[in-house]
Amino acid sequence: MARIVRVAACQMGPVQRADPREATLARLIALLEKAAAEGARLAVFPELALTTFFPRWPIEDEAELLSYFEPEMPNPNVQPLFDRARALGVGFYLGYAELDRGAFDDGPGGDGAVRRRGYNSAVLVAPDGTILGKYRKVHLPGSERVRPGQRWQQLEKRYFAYGDLGFPAFRTEAPIGPGIMGMLICNDRRWPEAWRCLGLQGAEMVLVGYNSAAYDPNGGEGESAALRTFHSTLVAQANAYMNATWAVAVAKAGEEDGAGLIGGSCIVDPNGQVVAQATTLGDEVLVADCDLDATRQGKTKMFDFAAHRRPQHYRRIVDQVGVVPPS
Amino acid sequence: MARIVRVAACQMGPVQRADPREATLARLIALLEKAAAEGARLAVFPELALTTFFPRWPIEDEAELLSYFEPEMPNPNVQPLFDRARALGVGFYLGYAELDRGAFDDGPGGDGAVRRRGYNSAVLVAPDGTILGKYRKVHLPGSERVRPGQRWQQLEKRYFAYGDLGFPAFRTEAPIGPGIMGMLICNDRRWPEAWRCLGLQGAEMVLVGYNSAAYDPNGGEGESAALRTFHSTLVAQANAYMNATWAVAVAKAGEEDGAGLIGGSCIVDPNGQVVAQATTLGDEVLVADCDLDATRQGKTKMFDFAAHRRPQHYRRIVDQVGVVPPS
Repeated sequence: MARIVRVAACQMGPVQRADPREATLARLIALLEKAAAEGARLAVFPELALTTFFPRWPIEDEAELLSYFEPEMPNPNVQPLFDRARALGVGFYLGYAELDRGAFDDGPGGDGAVRRRGYNSAVLVAPDGTILGKYRKVHLPGSERVRPGQRWQQLEKRYFAYGDLGFPAFRTEAPIGPGIMGMLICNDRRWPEAWRCLGLQGAEMVLVGYNSAAYDPNGGEGESAALRTFHSTLVAQANAYMNATWAVAVAKAGEEDGAGLIGGSCIVDPNGQVVAQATTLGDEVLVADCDLDATRQGKTKMFDFAAHRRPQHYRRIVDQVGVVPPS
Repeated sequence: MARIVRVAACQMGPVQRADPREATLARLIALLEKAAAEGARLAVFPELALTTFFPRWPIEDEAELLSYFEPEMPNPNVQPLFDRARALGVGFYLGYAELDRGAFDDGPGGDGAVRRRGYNSAVLVAPDGTILGKYRKVHLPGSERVRPGQRWQQLEKRYFAYGDLGFPAFRTEAPIGPGIMGMLICNDRRWPEAWRCLGLQGAEMVLVGYNSAAYDPNGGEGESAALRTFHSTLVAQANAYMNATWAVAVAKAGEEDGAGLIGGSCIVDPNGQVVAQATTLGDEVLVADCDLDATRQGKTKMFDFAAHRRPQHYRRIVDQVGVVPPS
């Protein structure tokens, strides 16, 4: 009795700052239609799929900053995607900037203050349009403050509050299929704690959208795009294996407003083997049949957590944040 | 100012049950001499390097069971290895069964009782013969009880007590080089919690010995040797990357007493890239120069734990052992 989820990794090419929302939404819908035409019941879109990766700039203008955030989900700007998904009977994961006035903890104010306007979020939407779950990114990279003299920034800690929902897993039902799924966003995928918190809820498929720099746009010495893509694939593979789960990792890729993003979107099985991987840096759909019962081998043997984990020796993971070297 | 540790992964072919200890010790010394001849200052031997992997059998005879354990370290049976290492100025990691009468918690007795005689341990030995640290395997695989009707068993939980020392990291000095090192044993390497506990102590090199089955010797359907070797390499790569550390993973390999063990010993850099990997299933030495300062990029940027970890969301990792599915 296989439990097959036919999933589509819907990689996107860049979304330029100047692109009208309608054009971006049309691209998302085109990807969704391609996924549906191949029989997929679940489409996975990238992190911040609706806009350019705006944390790369210092943004002083409040109206511009707010223009990147969704006041609610869905809202009229994205309703056509929800409508089309419902008509096609396809569920989806969508990354977006979630406006939340409760996250406006800007501190004492002044030019250096942070400008948190909400969360870097993702929703899991059922084929009938119901929002099955929401996740707010926990591992925000970058800095709160603008780094002087650098043309390109990484200001996620400036514009977003840290996710406050933990790492919830969600049950899915037909037509996606009966399973347990979790969501991560971008940098989260490099943190084994995030995957383990999902694994400890029995996650059988982990959905991850990302926007990851392909090179240092400020021209510093740095890792090559090939090495960064290797890292991205490696963490999806190993964390899928170590938690006996499928993983679907989906990029926004290519040259976006003058800064490069890696591609390498992939679907990974519970053995950590890549079953499909993007070959372009543009809009591209990968489809695979993922048997959620293929997670049973790992979950009941090598990674039978109840039989083999020893949490009494893991205290450092929660008792300290940074490194405490031996004396 | 690079901090180079020239390390040797000293993979061993099988150690048969009938092999005299002197012959095995001569092989270890030959590997050590080869490592030293190539300039290595640290040699890494496998798990249970001195004997066959005896947990594959039910052993009722007390004298035979005790014959696999070392009453202390060093002891006359292994002193020649310590002496040769001192003469060559080479430190080493050695996996062995550590006798500890305090671990004799056999329960109520009777034929089904466990027969714990100590720990599955490793020591890190300085070139002057000083024992810098000891580690006792935390993640014991297998079962406590003999599985009826199976020729081959995995009885680590029967013969060993769970490691009770946590995951300590140790400082090394010249001539190995100034660094922070940690030890894991076999199955530990598949558990990201173990690596993270070392990463949270600033580990710059993690040493792992292993004996991992190449196939199901009972003839059941199972993973191929190629897939098992892939898993072994994958977890070394990803956990090295996610903790910005070097990793040296060393097998006892080949057909041992009729059961197969994978090889694939490897040296992995802090980017998760394999810099050397064994090509045989026999005694084989891999040498690499590992610059511990190559860990700085990861430790100060992507994996700057103090800046980016969010332990308040990791509670499940210590608050539960097994899976708790969502309602």
